Amino acid sequence: MSAQTHSQTNQRIILTSRPEGAPTAADFRLVEAPVPEISPGEVLLRTIYLSLDPYMRGRMSAAKSYAPPVELGEVMEGGTVSIVEKSRNHDFRVGDYVLSHSGWQSYAVSDGTGLRRLDPAHYPLSTALGVLGMPGFAAYAGLLHIGKPEPGETVVVAAASGPVGSAVGQIARLKGARVVGIAGGAAKCAYVKDELGFDAVIDHQAPDFAQQLKYACPGGIDVYFENVGGKVWDGVFPLLNRFARVPVCGLIAQYNGLEEVAADHDRLPGIMSAILRKSLTVRGFIQRDFSAHYPAFLKEMGEWVGRGEVRYREDFVDGLENAPAGLIGMLAGRNFGKLLVRVSDEAY
Amino acid sequence: MSAQTHSQTNQRIILTSRPEGAPTAADFRLVEAPVPEISPGEVLLRTIYLSLDPYMRGRMSAAKSYAPPVELGEVMEGGTVSIVEKSRNHDFRVGDYVLSHSGWQSYAVSDGTGLRRLDPAHYPLSTALGVLGMPGFAAYAGLLHIGKPEPGETVVVAAASGPVGSAVGQIARLKGARVVGIAGGAAKCAYVKDELGFDAVIDHQAPDFAQQLKYACPGGIDVYFENVGGKVWDGVFPLLNRFARVPVCGLIAQYNGLEEVAADHDRLPGIMSAILRKSLTVRGFIQRDFSAHYPAFLKEMGEWVGRGEVRYREDFVDGLENAPAGLIGMLAGRNFGKLLVRVSDEAY
Repeated sequence: MSAQTHSQTNQRIILTSRPEGAPTAADFRLVEAPVPEISPGEVLLRTIYLSLDPYMRGRMSAAKSYAPPVELGEVMEGGTVSIVEKSRNHDFRVGDYVLSHSGWQSYAVSDGTGLRRLDPAHYPLSTALGVLGMPGFAAYAGLLHIGKPEPGETVVVAAASGPVGSAVGQIARLKGARVVGIAGGAAKCAYVKDELGFDAVIDHQAPDFAQQLKYACPGGIDVYFENVGGKVWDGVFPLLNRFARVPVCGLIAQYNGLEEVAADHDRLPGIMSAILRKSLTVRGFIQRDFSAHYPAFLKEMGEWVGRGEVRYREDFVDGLENAPAGLIGMLAGRNFGKLLVRVSDEAY
Repeated sequence: MSAQTHSQTNQRIILTSRPEGAPTAADFRLVEAPVPEISPGEVLLRTIYLSLDPYMRGRMSAAKSYAPPVELGEVMEGGTVSIVEKSRNHDFRVGDYVLSHSGWQSYAVSDGTGLRRLDPAHYPLSTALGVLGMPGFAAYAGLLHIGKPEPGETVVVAAASGPVGSAVGQIARLKGARVVGIAGGAAKCAYVKDELGFDAVIDHQAPDFAQQLKYACPGGIDVYFENVGGKVWDGVFPLLNRFARVPVCGLIAQYNGLEEVAADHDRLPGIMSAILRKSLTVRGFIQRDFSAHYPAFLKEMGEWVGRGEVRYREDFVDGLENAPAGLIGMLAGRNFGKLLVRVSDEAY
């Protein structure tokens, strides 16, 4: 099984075309290259886990954003947990585990910049890409620094079984808020309610979704953590209370195209009117905006995870060659938990 | 002239119907009642100036908002500068000038709650309804506590000759920002540029408005103070920089109906996408949300006005009976400066 052996070549997945709408397997190509040599000051990293995240859809597009797109013919971008295979850098030894941004490839060369050493004795290595990594931090920063839930307030979050939504809801509960999750399908809903301990959960596939949401939020909504976009918004919006906060962290439902989530009329004037009438705050962010809070996150979230107060779930795809299918499935809502590609063994 | 004599009856303008779209004269009726008697603890107030403000359109509607609507058959709501004509309250003497909320009527009774004494030796009495009152405070609070312009940043404000917009722009310049105003017609534009000293001004009636705005904002827009809604937004939105702030203070263009400003497609997904990509903050407010800052506003704005660093312009309508036409005209953009009704003489 490719995931469990160390490739003798550098497998790389490159972007070959920019999708219109949903990406397909044809937008990617697996190419092989020699395992790279390193120069003085550099390390050779072998990828163990590759993180698959919704933002990657944005990097496949040429549209202007906070980060430049992946160029056609270049390796897809992505966060990784990697192991140092060779080192000519005094700061890293062979066998060190690091958080890297090696992208969709089995080997990468680094001069050490931006690498963060990981200790597998502390937490499972994969968590550095999930609950104790970027998705967990996005949840933490957006919820606590924009959403600012007060005890007794109602927090609603969609994609509640996913890595961001599950962390948002659990942190909000730890801060004393009442939490209503939204998820797709009975299995995810059961997990959110029973395993994660949300106060209520609603299936967005239910025909009476908006009614159920209203019923689950009798005191209205004080914080809506937006990480999906699309139809959920129309159910949430009328329930927002005065002074409600809406951290906008992601809009996965519209990453494949705005037309997929457009209504048959212009919703903007009504939204602006409500923003004014209710003194709402709608604020977009990327986790990097809050990087000053990253050490506090690692400490606090680490304690919560260590005590089992924040739980998480991971979905593994085996083998780099299956990364495109993994991403395509995630954009269609088919993952359940943090999605990772197991590229090679943890063992040295 | 009715405005210059003291009515022997209480003239009152009541709301008789809820307009669909733009209000008309038929939505109001002038009725006469005896001048009211006062009980122990009360004062009789004679209205000198009645403020006309865009928010009044909202009070004519039954739609849910931060404040209840004016009931049909009731006197229209509104801020006033009034004089104490009779007093059975130890805190107020006959001849005292006060800021009141007497509504659209020539006399009102108060137990003193919420009245603020005004000293005509300090500032012209009318300014308590404008630059040193609610509109000035809305500008001050929204700009400084949501917009937070930094020196060198670009601030854009529409209705720039109006009481809120003119204050926003001048305060932003005092804080070191570059200010671009938007106004309707050559006379207002000349006033904004030449009298108020904005760095640039653009006529929203120009066919190439969006182009001109782009040219006037070569470094993009960091703060857009939203007090109009409508088409200006479409020109502003693409120019917003990363981390731009949009205080939403008013949406006069859509108060007469959302359909008037709706686009032919759903703009919401595109707006949400930009909010995410650019880490934008869109936050609605009413000035009351910031009431803790009111004393600071009075002090700071009073100093600016006293030194001529913040200038203002007032438009007077003579006679309470002309208040409806004044409001209707304002909602159509026909006023030029803070609109006030001169209901009676300042002199006792």
